[in-house]
Amino acid sequence: MSLLVVGSVALDSVQTPFGSTADALGGSAVFFAAAGALLHPVQLVGVIGSDYPEGKLQQLAKRGIDLTGLTRADGESFRWKGRYSYDLQNRETLETRLGVFADFQPTIPAAFRDAQYVFLGNIDPELQLRVLDQVRQPKLVACDTMNYWIQSKLDVVLELLRHVDVLMVNDAEARQISGDWNIYRAARWILERGPSQVVIKQGEYGAVLMSDHTLFYVPAYPLEEIFDPTGAGDAFAGGFMAHLARTADLDPLNVRRAMVYGSAMGSFAVERFGVDRFDELTIDEVTRRVREFADLVHFEVRE
Amino acid sequence: MSLLVVGSVALDSVQTPFGSTADALGGSAVFFAAAGALLHPVQLVGVIGSDYPEGKLQQLAKRGIDLTGLTRADGESFRWKGRYSYDLQNRETLETRLGVFADFQPTIPAAFRDAQYVFLGNIDPELQLRVLDQVRQPKLVACDTMNYWIQSKLDVVLELLRHVDVLMVNDAEARQISGDWNIYRAARWILERGPSQVVIKQGEYGAVLMSDHTLFYVPAYPLEEIFDPTGAGDAFAGGFMAHLARTADLDPLNVRRAMVYGSAMGSFAVERFGVDRFDELTIDEVTRRVREFADLVHFEVRE
Repeated sequence: MSLLVVGSVALDSVQTPFGSTADALGGSAVFFAAAGALLHPVQLVGVIGSDYPEGKLQQLAKRGIDLTGLTRADGESFRWKGRYSYDLQNRETLETRLGVFADFQPTIPAAFRDAQYVFLGNIDPELQLRVLDQVRQPKLVACDTMNYWIQSKLDVVLELLRHVDVLMVNDAEARQISGDWNIYRAARWILERGPSQVVIKQGEYGAVLMSDHTLFYVPAYPLEEIFDPTGAGDAFAGGFMAHLARTADLDPLNVRRAMVYGSAMGSFAVERFGVDRFDELTIDEVTRRVREFADLVHFEVRE
Repeated sequence: MSLLVVGSVALDSVQTPFGSTADALGGSAVFFAAAGALLHPVQLVGVIGSDYPEGKLQQLAKRGIDLTGLTRADGESFRWKGRYSYDLQNRETLETRLGVFADFQPTIPAAFRDAQYVFLGNIDPELQLRVLDQVRQPKLVACDTMNYWIQSKLDVVLELLRHVDVLMVNDAEARQISGDWNIYRAARWILERGPSQVVIKQGEYGAVLMSDHTLFYVPAYPLEEIFDPTGAGDAFAGGFMAHLARTADLDPLNVRRAMVYGSAMGSFAVERFGVDRFDELTIDEVTRRVREFADLVHFEVRE
C-alpha cells in the first residue's frame, strides 16, 4: 500500500525560548515523511532549490523516504523564519521567501501514480487538485490547507473538498472555512461538503476525528518540555496516514488507532528542533507512547 | 459518606449571544450542589441576603441539598453580572456586588462537622482554612481558588495547599500559582506543596488529573450548542466529589471515573442558563453521558 505526500520542502529558521535553528530541514512534506517513514515507506513529491542541503535530506530519507519525486530547480529553496512566544502559544512569521516553491508544479512520477494513500500537504489548492488528476485510484486521500487559501481561494478549497476523503486542519482553519466557531458544528459543515472524515487538530490539547458515524478524541501527549511546535500538525498527518497505509485497514476502529499514532508523532516532533527527533526515534518508542495514550484516557464504566 | 460544600451563593446576571438572565441562582456552592446532589446528598454552607429568592433555592434543594448551613443575613445577596463574547471564549465582569458575602464567616453546623468529603469553593483562603478547623476528620478535602487570591494572598493559598488533598483549578490559575506556563510542570509544582492530587480544568478542551502515580485526561463532552459557560467548573467539582462520596472509594481507578462524572456534569451545566439544566436532569442521562465518554476516547492497542 504505497503512501504519497506532496507538499513543501523548506529550510526553517526558528527561534524559541530554548534556542534557535538556521536553515533546518522543514516543510510539510518533510515533517510528514520524517514521521510517517518510521511506520511505512513514504513517496515524497516536492521541489528544492540549488542551495538545499541534500546530504541531510538523503540522511533522513534512509529511513524510508523515496525521493524520486523531488525536483531540483535553479534558485533558492523555500525559506521560513519564525519566532515563538515564551509560552510557545503564539508564533510570528519573520520572513517567508518562496524561492523555487513559487513556481512549484507537482509532477507525480509514473512509479508513484498508483499510490493508494495520498496526503496533500498545505499548498495552493489548485495544485492539490492537479495532484489528484495524476494519481489513478487512491484508496484514501487526505489534505491540509491554511487560512491564506481559505481566504483567497475558498471556491477552489471547496472544490477540493469534493475530492478528498479526509480534511485535516487545525481548529482556527475549521472555524474559518465553515464560518462557525463551534468546532463540532464546523466539522459537520465540512462533512456535508465532501470528506467522509474530518480531523481537527487542537495543538497542545489534542485532536478530534469526526465522521457521520463516529466521534473520537485523542489528547495531546502530556509533555513537560516542548522545544519547537513547528511541524507538529504535519507529523501528526504522517503518523495517521502511515499507520493506515501499513495496516491497509480503514475500519473505524483502525482509524481511531491512526489518530493515536498521529498524536504520538506530533508529540515526538515538538521534543526537538525541526525533524531532529525522528533521526533516532525507534518503532519501540512509538509503540510505547501509543500504549501510554491508552493509559492516559483509560477508565471503566461501572453502571 | 457525607459531602459538604462551602462557597458562594449568588444571583447571576449573564449575557451570552443566546440571551440573558437576571438574578438567576448561581455561585460556586450552588453549582456544585445542583450537580452533585444528583449523585449524592450535599450539605451546603453559605450566606444569602434578605432578597434571595428562597423559593427557587428550596425547589433546587428538593433534589438532595441540605440547607441547614445556609445563613440568612440582613442586606443584599452577592450579585455577579457578566457578559460573554460571541464565541463564549472570553467573559467580561460587568459588576460584582458582594453584599452580605463580604462578611461571610462560614460556620459549619454541628451536624455537618463529621463530613467525610469536603469541597472548599472559591472564597477567601483564610475562610477556607477556617472551615477546615471546623470539620473533624474528613477523608478527602478538595478546594478551588482564583487569580484574585493567588495574587493577593499567595502565602495563605500555599498554607491551604498543605491541608487539602485535591486542588481543582483551571489552567490559568495553575500557571499563575506555580509561575510555570506548562500545565504538567505546574501540576507537579503543586503536588510538591501538599495535595496528593491536582485537577486542572481546561474548559472546552477537558481536564487533567495528576498525582504522583497517575496522569489521566478526560476530554470535554463534545457539545454543538453551549448556552452559558458559567459554573461549569463548579459543576465539574460537584460531579467529581459526589461520585467519590457515593462510592466511598478512593482507588485511583475510581478517581478517574470521578473525573468523567465531573466532565459530564460540567457539560450539562453549560447546556442551559445557570443551574436550569439540573432541574430536570436524570441519573439515566448522566449514566448515558458517562458511557458516551468511554466511546469518545475508546481505542485498542494492537501491538
